[in-house]
Formats: sequence, C-alpha cells, structure tokens
Amino acid sequence: MVKLPAVLEKYRPAIDEEMRKVLADRDLPLYDMLRYHLGWADTGGRPLKSDAGKALRPTLCLLACRAVGGDLTMALPAAAAIELLHNYSLIHDDIQDDDRERHHRPTVWAVWGKPQAINAGTAMRILANFSLAGLSERGVSLEKQVRVQRLLDEATLRIIEGQYRDISFEDSERVTVQDYLKMISDKTAALIAGALQAGAMLGTEDERLISRFGELGENLGMAFQVRDDILGVWGNHAETGKPLGNDIRRRKKTLPVLYAIENARDGQRARLASAFSQVIIDERSVTRVVEVLDEVYARAAAAEMSDAYCRRAGAALAAMALDPAAKRELGELIAFLADRSF
Amino acid sequence: MVKLPAVLEKYRPAIDEEMRKVLADRDLPLYDMLRYHLGWADTGGRPLKSDAGKALRPTLCLLACRAVGGDLTMALPAAAAIELLHNYSLIHDDIQDDDRERHHRPTVWAVWGKPQAINAGTAMRILANFSLAGLSERGVSLEKQVRVQRLLDEATLRIIEGQYRDISFEDSERVTVQDYLKMISDKTAALIAGALQAGAMLGTEDERLISRFGELGENLGMAFQVRDDILGVWGNHAETGKPLGNDIRRRKKTLPVLYAIENARDGQRARLASAFSQVIIDERSVTRVVEVLDEVYARAAAAEMSDAYCRRAGAALAAMALDPAAKRELGELIAFLADRSF
Repeated sequence: MVKLPAVLEKYRPAIDEEMRKVLADRDLPLYDMLRYHLGWADTGGRPLKSDAGKALRPTLCLLACRAVGGDLTMALPAAAAIELLHNYSLIHDDIQDDDRERHHRPTVWAVWGKPQAINAGTAMRILANFSLAGLSERGVSLEKQVRVQRLLDEATLRIIEGQYRDISFEDSERVTVQDYLKMISDKTAALIAGALQAGAMLGTEDERLISRFGELGENLGMAFQVRDDILGVWGNHAETGKPLGNDIRRRKKTLPVLYAIENARDGQRARLASAFSQVIIDERSVTRVVEVLDEVYARAAAAEMSDAYCRRAGAALAAMALDPAAKRELGELIAFLADRSF
Repeated sequence: MVKLPAVLEKYRPAIDEEMRKVLADRDLPLYDMLRYHLGWADTGGRPLKSDAGKALRPTLCLLACRAVGGDLTMALPAAAAIELLHNYSLIHDDIQDDDRERHHRPTVWAVWGKPQAINAGTAMRILANFSLAGLSERGVSLEKQVRVQRLLDEATLRIIEGQYRDISFEDSERVTVQDYLKMISDKTAALIAGALQAGAMLGTEDERLISRFGELGENLGMAFQVRDDILGVWGNHAETGKPLGNDIRRRKKTLPVLYAIENARDGQRARLASAFSQVIIDERSVTRVVEVLDEVYARAAAAEMSDAYCRRAGAALAAMALDPAAKRELGELIAFLADRSF
C-alpha cells in the first residue's frame, strides 16, 4: 500500500467514529451491506479490522473549518455526512457501470445483486441526512444546518447529473474534451467543492472565504479526476485496485482517449477506431489504444491539465488569510493529490 | 377510467403546480425522464396533457393540515415533496422488480435503461428536499421545516427497509403473514402515515393530534396495501393498469398467497407448490393458484383484514376534534380507499 499523508491518518478516527454513530443499532441485514461497503464488515456482517477509505472529502471539510478559524468538532457531523454521501454514489456507480470489483473486494451488487444494492446506496444517502442532524445538537444554528443540507443536496444532484452525462457518453459518437470537463466537474468536483464549502461555512460568516473554498475545491476536484483518468490507463493494479487498462476495456471516454481522438492523425484515428470496434476489447486491443495515446502524448497533456488545476487550487489557497497549521495541512493534501500514483 | 372522489380532483392542480416549480428550468434530458414518469411529457420530453397520478399522499397531507386548523397553502411544499418522494420509490421499484409497465405506459427503465433510471429515481428524491425549502419561504419556522425533513427521511428509510424485506422474500421459503405485515408497514404505510403527520405538524402544535394522525395513516396504509394485493390477483387489467394475475406470475409473496400457504391442507399446498415450481408461470398455473386461493377463501380473509384496518383508521379519525369540512373529506377518502376497485 502507498503511504497516505499524515493529515489523512490524523482525522480519520474521528470521522470514522461519527459515521459509526449513524449506523449503530441498525440491525436489519440491509445495513450490513453498508458496513461491508465501508470496509467495516465482511459479507456476513462480521466486523473487520477497519480498512476504510482515504476519507479525503471529510478531511477537506474539517480542514476548511479549522482554516477559517472554526472548531472542527462542530463540522464532524457534516464531514461524516459527506463521506456517507460519497459512498452512496460509489455503490450506485458500481451498479451502473457493471463494476464487480472495488479496492480489491467484490462490489456490493456483485455480492447481493443489483436490486438490493440500489437499496443499500439510497439508504446510505438518507443516513447522510441523519448525520447532519448532529450539527444543531453540537450547537450549530438551524440556519447553518439547513444551508449545509442544501449544499449537499445540490452536490448530490450535480453528481447525478454528471453520472447521467457519463453514461450518455457511452452511446454518443461525438464527445469532446469540453463535454468531458463539464461531466467531471459535476460528477467529481462538485462534492469536493461542497466538502470545503461546508467546512468553511461551519467555521466562519465570511461569505467571500466560503466561496473561495468552493473555487479551490472545484479546481482540486478537476485535478483529482484527471489524475484518476491517467491512472485508469497507466496505473498500477496493485496500487489502484483496478485492472490495468480497465477504462479502455470498458470503452470509457476519459480525458486521455478524448484527447487522443481530437489530436490523432488519420492513421492513428483509424487504429483507435479499429481497436474500439472489437466486440470484446482484449489485451492486444488495449495495447494498441495505449500505443496511439502515447504517440500523441495524451498522458503528458492530461498531466499538464491536472497540474494546471492543482496550481489554481494552490493559488486560491495561498490567497486566503487562514489558520497557518490548517493551511499547511491543506497545502500538503493538494500536493499529495497532484502527485499521487495510486 | 374509474371516477376518483372529488376530493382528489380538488387539490390536484395546486399540488401539481407546486411540483412543477421544482422541475422548472431543469434542461438536462435527465429531467425529461422525471417529467415522463410523472405523466407530464412523452419520451421525447414533449409536454403531454397531464395524466398525473391520484396524488393521494399529498392530498392526505393537505387535508390533515386543514383538519387541525392550519392553512393548507403552508403545507403545499411538503405535499409536493411527498409526491416526489413517492415517485422516486416507484421508479426504483420498477427497476428492482423488473416491471416494464406502469399505468399502461412503459416504465422509465424500460425506455432509458436501468443505469439512467437509477439516476432519475435518486434525482427525484433529492428534488423532494428542494421542495421542502419552500416551507420556510412561506413562513413556516425552520424548526418545523427541519422536523418535516426528518420525518420524510425516516419514511424514506422505512420504504427502503420494506423494499429490502420484499426482495428478500423472493429467496425465502418461510415467509409468514406476520413478516408480510411488517414489510408493508414499512414499504407502504410509513409514507401514508408520514404524509398525514407532516400535514398535521404544519397546522398545529398539538403533539397528541400529530401522533394520532400517524396512527390513522399507519392503518390506512395497511388497508391500502392489502387492497392492492387483492387487486394484484383478482383486479381488472383495464382499471389497474397491471396484467391480470401479475403478482402470481412474478411469484410475489403477497397476502392472499401467504394466507393460502398458511391455511391450505396438504393437497392444496401440493397444488400451490407444483404451480409455483414451474420455470415460467403460465396462464394455466396462474389459474391453478387462484383456484386454491379461492378454496381457502383467501380473498375474503384479505378483504376482512383490509376492512379491519380501515375501521381502525376511521375510528382514529372519529376520535379527533377537527375542522368539520376537512374531516368529512378525510372520511370520504378513507371510504374510497376501503372500496376502490382499481
């Protein structure tokens, strides 16, 4: 396993504890599906030594709260809600994309079937709302709680819109890099931006700071997703947990492929078309696609794009007057996401 | 078409208008799927002369508000949210149950495929929350808005739990009438109870009245679902919009079948088992199941159960001191639901 930056390790136990509160005393086996997905239990509902995710989004939420001078324990219910919300979208994505594996484990639908996995995902989304109720219990005003709820609802709707676009791409011959950027802005950047904005909202009344954090998050989210696309083609299976060339095999119209289509010469375009015209895209076809991608420098172009988004995120951070320790940790996270190889 | 009671016609335009507000200006074709499901548009997004549903739940919400002395226009955003929530569950149910037809039209997934229909359903559920924001805009306190939100989240979770149980029944050999009653209490009665409670909550501070409306709704919901099960076996296709014997063909463990299993003698039980053991349950097998159901008086037993729930709902209504006009309309609705043949 790749070493995560210390900042992700630091806040995870508190986030984890807050998430577990929401699922405590829920006995119906439905909730074992959620615990399984979250890495807390095996398929029989027996507890596992936690193998939870990176908790990137909730950590961003907490750091934003601290950075603007807030008390991060006030933001914990929102952080937990954001991680639950994120996991709802993963459960449904796996169903929609027919993905049988995530983080080296069978996906929820691969174990319980798609009808029950739909239930598990939507239940996770509702539990995110339950977590938000903890805000007013900790002394956050009801106005703020309702505002955070609205922010997360809007982020959810953007995730769904992004996923709608992504699925629509499968049947479309003419997807541009620009269409793609709009899609990932909704599907990925919206929640990362929402996490930072929610955190800032819970720590300050300064509307300019709150919206700056939104801007930071949109750029960070774009960088994150473009990186993910690069890893989807050239990533290392042991580290990413995804089969190599997975996105190509699944004909995903991700940035490297779209960039290649827009920048290929006729011969190269024909080779791409021929590889993608196979009924099943085998190893040889994957290799042929990657060859064309390399010839047009698709990897370098995508990496440059990701770096540019990261620089914008970094600049947004630098421009704000923030708590120095939290600001440094946010900077570390941005650097990690810019660089990560998993 | 069966004639609906006047009370359902009366409030529908206002509910419809409130629901349309939430979907206005949403241009992504994703939202055409929602408009199609709601009967507002054809599959190409072109407006239809509205063929909306009965709007039973939102009407109950408005009537409860008026009955306790409230101003029903204050409850309109909640009523619209409840109808949107109900329709989210229908879209996902159709996916989960593999149902291709609803109200004589292809279901959302039958037109757009399951991955996109999952998006449409969840988007509908989020839009229900957006509608609730209209409560404080109309002068309802934020405390009440948050409380109604919580009530609807809890109802949603119960719907999901009920659906989880219902799907689990498919693989279970030993489902009892009691298991079934718990299942429909979550899957169906929870939202009908929630609609009445939300309405009462928005019209009064009297907690006893609010919880009485919950009790009324639980009983009404049970009556409603048991009726629905009767129609699923003996209903008239032209009126219900469902193929005759549909629930038997789909091996649904509904009340009449479970009652028959519990009350059949050995020979009858063997005939049921033999019919259900067919790989595809054809017309002849459906007929054989219905024969056994009739022999053990399953229809009469189910009807008696439904009537008993209705009587309890009626008694809960009668025991409350309410606005006379609204009380009379609620009584009409209960009588209609007890009697309905579609």
